[in-house]
Amino acid sequence: MIITSRANETIKSARVLHRAKERKESGLHLIEGDKLVFDAVLSDAKIVRIFCEEGFLPPEGFETVFVTRQVLESLCESTTPQHLCAIVKTPDCTPPQSYPEGLILCLDGLQDIGNVGTIIRTTDALGAAAVLIGLDTADAFSPKGVRASMGSCYHIPIYKGELASELKRLKAQGFFCLCGHLKGSEALPKTGKKVALVIGNEGNGVCAEVANECYLYRMRQQGRAESLNAAAFAAIMTDRLINGRTVADL
Amino acid sequence: MIITSRANETIKSARVLHRAKERKESGLHLIEGDKLVFDAVLSDAKIVRIFCEEGFLPPEGFETVFVTRQVLESLCESTTPQHLCAIVKTPDCTPPQSYPEGLILCLDGLQDIGNVGTIIRTTDALGAAAVLIGLDTADAFSPKGVRASMGSCYHIPIYKGELASELKRLKAQGFFCLCGHLKGSEALPKTGKKVALVIGNEGNGVCAEVANECYLYRMRQQGRAESLNAAAFAAIMTDRLINGRTVADL
Repeated sequence: MIITSRANETIKSARVLHRAKERKESGLHLIEGDKLVFDAVLSDAKIVRIFCEEGFLPPEGFETVFVTRQVLESLCESTTPQHLCAIVKTPDCTPPQSYPEGLILCLDGLQDIGNVGTIIRTTDALGAAAVLIGLDTADAFSPKGVRASMGSCYHIPIYKGELASELKRLKAQGFFCLCGHLKGSEALPKTGKKVALVIGNEGNGVCAEVANECYLYRMRQQGRAESLNAAAFAAIMTDRLINGRTVADL
Repeated sequence: MIITSRANETIKSARVLHRAKERKESGLHLIEGDKLVFDAVLSDAKIVRIFCEEGFLPPEGFETVFVTRQVLESLCESTTPQHLCAIVKTPDCTPPQSYPEGLILCLDGLQDIGNVGTIIRTTDALGAAAVLIGLDTADAFSPKGVRASMGSCYHIPIYKGELASELKRLKAQGFFCLCGHLKGSEALPKTGKKVALVIGNEGNGVCAEVANECYLYRMRQQGRAESLNAAAFAAIMTDRLINGRTVADL
């Protein structure tokens, strides 16, 4: 059977997942794009249902609904979507009792969902341990967020929590917490294997309550730009901290 | 006098600058946002004309046209623009006879204008010498491009040219040319002060003709992400090359 109507109940119940409120209440999210759907399958993401344009081949082993091109387009944000989209169960983002050793990227109030996704992708590529997302940060599991992360949100643990209190817990567990800050020092002390790096809001930086828990670091800049883009700052710092060699000198 | 009609000829001649073809033919571009306009003024960009919403104060010393809110909105891409936009003379992007010493970021076929702007901003902040933009890369002087660069396109030299032949010239001038490449080596040789770093297209990487002129480098990645976002890769590599310390070890 092929669903031909955008008003079909199954289609409508998928389309509402474009809204953050519906994603939160259902614990589900919607992803689009062939590569992303196949990547989610390979990453053992919990696929609830796949929507496949008629005439194309979906991944095997999942509940699949075939739809017309028009119906598929109604499910996708992209104006020229590919042939697949899928409802996926959102991973449990409860912060763990004991945080994993390594570098944990903490996002404080980032509003640009592209930045959030890019940071998750970078963090995954460079081998960080996890991403901890503050309560007021854009939703990593929105369609655009998953796209920007290129599926990396299924590769590494994503936690959500109230940042200031989680940073207190991280410190109690031996983590060195630092953030970029205009009033920070240009020197970085040696850090061990447990580091939490906070990335602040694009315009306003890290909020005072969070900065209070952190070593304040100001990256030395040589040009005339006032600051770095949040995702670019996160990429450079992740590389410095994970590859470790340069930190003592900075 | 306040212009109240979106059909006014002065307004129409500004609005066409949203199109790449018109920007190219006129040698002008349009920027929006109060901070960006003031930053362009401070950066000695060549302001041709400022459009200011009635009731607000424009920077002094420039030809200024006051417009209604509705007219201002018709000039801006942003759905909720601030109070200023401006026509700016696009800098001469002809590659120089002799390239400046330092790190030169070369963009080969980047399609995401946000990536282009972010790379220009990062390059400026970290103190690179210039950005060389290939002919098939998104326009750094589009409204979105200038916004993503946060005005850094007025701080550092931007050149445009045919990349493969410019890389030949760069090598003749003593530059070490390298690019990220899936088939590259994970080792980076020591580089001197003259380095050209090529960033490739988001999906396809660096084209063969350009790669032929470069040392191929593959960044070691530890996670499950297939690759880094182009702007994140550029940020990490710019930091490594400019700060120099880590290059020999990688």
